[in-house]
Amino acid sequence: MKRISLWVFVAATAACVIASIPFTAGGADDEGSPIYGVKIPAGYREWELVNIAHEAGNLNDLRAVLGNAVAMKAFRDGTLPFPDGTIIARLAWKDVPSAENNAVFGRFQSFVTGAATNLEFLVKDSKKYAASGGWGFAQFTDGKPDDEALHKTCFPCHEPAKAHDFVFTHYAP
Amino acid sequence: MKRISLWVFVAATAACVIASIPFTAGGADDEGSPIYGVKIPAGYREWELVNIAHEAGNLNDLRAVLGNAVAMKAFRDGTLPFPDGTIIARLAWKDVPSAENNAVFGRFQSFVTGAATNLEFLVKDSKKYAASGGWGFAQFTDGKPDDEALHKTCFPCHEPAKAHDFVFTHYAP
Repeated sequence: MKRISLWVFVAATAACVIASIPFTAGGADDEGSPIYGVKIPAGYREWELVNIAHEAGNLNDLRAVLGNAVAMKAFRDGTLPFPDGTIIARLAWKDVPSAENNAVFGRFQSFVTGAATNLEFLVKDSKKYAASGGWGFAQFTDGKPDDEALHKTCFPCHEPAKAHDFVFTHYAP
Repeated sequence: MKRISLWVFVAATAACVIASIPFTAGGADDEGSPIYGVKIPAGYREWELVNIAHEAGNLNDLRAVLGNAVAMKAFRDGTLPFPDGTIIARLAWKDVPSAENNAVFGRFQSFVTGAATNLEFLVKDSKKYAASGGWGFAQFTDGKPDDEALHKTCFPCHEPAKAHDFVFTHYAP
């Protein structure tokens, strides 16, 4: 029988504990984001996957983009602009090596999700958010909205994606 | 108005084309995997996200694990072993730099999904697959099952995860 060394077990356990820190679910009394007033939508974690990505550098994260039903239909059909009612969620976790997986692959190569970093939402309402391309923005850390200074950077950052209705993510079939 | 250089546009377009090569959807006449006879389940692409990971080295991919309803309930509840009827899907795409995103971040750091590589499934049937921990395995490339030699490696590779019912992936809340 193949023995797994104790340190692999300890590292795997630590990774599991770290990975289990959840994104906090939203509720009716929760605070909305500065400027836009966007709250964490109920059930977002169960939405369908749009695509995934990896940010190296200072962010050092693995990220997944999920979409509600309106979003998913638009992504699949290639509809632009996204219709009102579209909500896109961006989840992100620290990118951490997996000792358990590396032991199986026999080399240092495998990275899995560690602690959640922050949670972002794009909400389409072309009237309410006309000044920002029709989108309301929100970023939450540990279930609380980040500050107004951060939220002032959202739309300027997304402006280069204007040709795709300010959305960077495309659908991965 | 901020100008986006032509090369960024071309690179972004190329990335979109590459990213649109789909995983082929399954159908009733499709071939099942060698040894296990597992076929591509209908609708798998719309299942919920379990977790994501990044494999460096020779694989150089970004991967997402999705689960059917039985799987998701077990992952959330921490149920072991996974119940019969659990199906877990592992999608993977080449890990490619995103020129469009790097232009926004102002540095080389952003990696997105390129072409799909292969598609894997774990199907739980504790009677039918008793000889392999209760799991049937399948790997498909471009919609076709990979060969028998490949499928002989599935269970031995998964055996180190025996304490988690042979499943490497954990749920990322």
